[in-house]
Amino acid sequence: MLTGAPTDPGPTRPDRAPGGHARRRDTLRGLLREARLDALLVTDLVNVRYLSGFTGSNAALLVHADDAADRGEDRTVLATDGRYTVQAAAQAPDLPVLVERACAPALLAALPAAAVVGFDSAHVTVDGHGDLLDALAAGELRRAPGLVETLREVKDAGELDALRQACAVADAALAGMLAADGLHPGRTEREVARDLEERMREAGAEGPSFETIVAAGAHAAIPHHRPTDAPLADGDLLTMDFGALVDGYRSDMTRTLVVGTPTPWQRDLHALVAEAAAAGRAALVPGVPTRDVDAAARDVIARAGFGEQFVHGLGHGVGLVIHEAPAVSATATATLKVGMTVTVEPGVYLAGRGGVRIEDTLVVTDDGAVPLTQSPRDLEVPFR
Amino acid sequence: MLTGAPTDPGPTRPDRAPGGHARRRDTLRGLLREARLDALLVTDLVNVRYLSGFTGSNAALLVHADDAADRGEDRTVLATDGRYTVQAAAQAPDLPVLVERACAPALLAALPAAAVVGFDSAHVTVDGHGDLLDALAAGELRRAPGLVETLREVKDAGELDALRQACAVADAALAGMLAADGLHPGRTEREVARDLEERMREAGAEGPSFETIVAAGAHAAIPHHRPTDAPLADGDLLTMDFGALVDGYRSDMTRTLVVGTPTPWQRDLHALVAEAAAAGRAALVPGVPTRDVDAAARDVIARAGFGEQFVHGLGHGVGLVIHEAPAVSATATATLKVGMTVTVEPGVYLAGRGGVRIEDTLVVTDDGAVPLTQSPRDLEVPFR
Repeated sequence: MLTGAPTDPGPTRPDRAPGGHARRRDTLRGLLREARLDALLVTDLVNVRYLSGFTGSNAALLVHADDAADRGEDRTVLATDGRYTVQAAAQAPDLPVLVERACAPALLAALPAAAVVGFDSAHVTVDGHGDLLDALAAGELRRAPGLVETLREVKDAGELDALRQACAVADAALAGMLAADGLHPGRTEREVARDLEERMREAGAEGPSFETIVAAGAHAAIPHHRPTDAPLADGDLLTMDFGALVDGYRSDMTRTLVVGTPTPWQRDLHALVAEAAAAGRAALVPGVPTRDVDAAARDVIARAGFGEQFVHGLGHGVGLVIHEAPAVSATATATLKVGMTVTVEPGVYLAGRGGVRIEDTLVVTDDGAVPLTQSPRDLEVPFR
Repeated sequence: MLTGAPTDPGPTRPDRAPGGHARRRDTLRGLLREARLDALLVTDLVNVRYLSGFTGSNAALLVHADDAADRGEDRTVLATDGRYTVQAAAQAPDLPVLVERACAPALLAALPAAAVVGFDSAHVTVDGHGDLLDALAAGELRRAPGLVETLREVKDAGELDALRQACAVADAALAGMLAADGLHPGRTEREVARDLEERMREAGAEGPSFETIVAAGAHAAIPHHRPTDAPLADGDLLTMDFGALVDGYRSDMTRTLVVGTPTPWQRDLHALVAEAAAAGRAALVPGVPTRDVDAAARDVIARAGFGEQFVHGLGHGVGLVIHEAPAVSATATATLKVGMTVTVEPGVYLAGRGGVRIEDTLVVTDDGAVPLTQSPRDLEVPFR
């Protein structure tokens, strides 16, 4: 594969944010004025995409706050290198493009006057910071981590459309596989994972949204098990954690089923985790701290005596990145807002025996949370 | 998918570097003494894996130079968090493990005395650097970018084994697809890409080593084209740039074929690029600056009047990362050494008509370069 050669953006789809990128930048400019920054240098490529629509592999944005008199005028500049001039014009037609390989320093060097410029100190490296200081003729660089990540927590209509589609694609893949008797004994974890991924692609995904987890039997006791050539056996618990990538947005869902007829302990464990998941979903209300959501689900499991076997946080924000803000865990500090998309995924893992995890991707609304993943949460495989 | 939950390392394979990690650390310690560093804090996960064998998603290493009296004693410490204690013991049995979520600061905080500690300033963020400064009770943090990357340029026997296997898997996938008439008219670029990836997995790859490129007809004029649903047509030039991931190591190969019978211009273009590729391969001699290798291939194409249509560098190092040091381009500053693995991939792109690229992964030896990718470089599809 080439270094430094032009990449075309791939098949284009209808813009998920018509006019939306400018609206997002306007909201960000309000945050900059509050933080008394003249401008923000955006270097993380996901944030560049979120604010401009541009998806090239080398880019930076300079977003100006503007003073009160200039408010309303968006003087954002996109920088990228010569490989991407055509793509930048197509994806970000509303922005002037500065063509330079060292994008971020070039944006600072082009500043006409001294300015207080925020930079993402959680993303810029020490060497990169040195380059920025060298480029800034006058003014000041100030740490400003996480501003765009905060904006990204709340999804707009276009983003929700993409997430809804990514979730529907995963639902369709699972339903199709179950209908085709895809979980029969003898099939391997790897085959099940490939089958799900192939069906997601056929249903319109660009690919899986993360490395698909398929864990059968005792493997289901390992939260992040990588699929092996181990065959499914009659009576196995089987956990599948997977998602689809659609227009850059990622879905995330886990279902645990039994290959064959469940035993009583499997039924009990599944019922317990299902109850915890329901409690977590019910707690997704605007204004509630996300740690309370974690507690709502965790309490159900702890009361049943399995608190020690629920070894991870309840969930996470999901969008352009599979794990993004807000965290939904015992130590999280976020508060739920309308439009946040998060996962709820309690699990109980019994070493050597197996485990159960049930996960959905949901959007927070004024009327509580709406699941975007909609596959049945049953323990038993239908159609068998 | 979970945040913060244990991941098992997946199916284990024979160790590619039995004793090799300790040897690599010994070589690195020599570099530290030369740079007058008491220790190096290693934070990039690929470098941690290279030096320890540990593949978890949260880790850091502290490698001590030791003074002349202590030479020979490896006091390296691996830090990771509680999710990975079992995995760390299995993958890095020769190293003590410090269990702490904030790995890198914890290693500095545990230092018994003032020390001059190098850190990878091209990888550590500004915020991360602040955390390191807070953790270091006495001593000094000093920028030391790229030290491990320099070591990684020259591959040892275990690494070459893995690369050889990764290349053989890609060769087998292409041969199998061609034998199955996989390039017939009507098939789509996407189908060809999936077919190659599936065959690589069947042949033992963990997956593709990067996003597979399949470009038919006019698309072959786009160096980094993403596969679409465009069908192959009789007479199309077809470029496939793909590779396999085996035990963490990545192969990289490009072949351009014609679907059907080549026309004279296609034959001429292919012959020209093949001549340039051969010139590049022949120039891969220990002691030669990599920019001279680029020039050897580029001159062939420029003399034919297509210099402007060869829009990228000739190649790059390849190993644990698909693009790593040394660069092989007109502006590169590296010099070839025995054991370096690099690609040679000249290409000529004719907008609207198509293009040809021919790429191999090779290892530099005392007797010149040996190709690890060994697929025929013919323009015509065999077996048709």
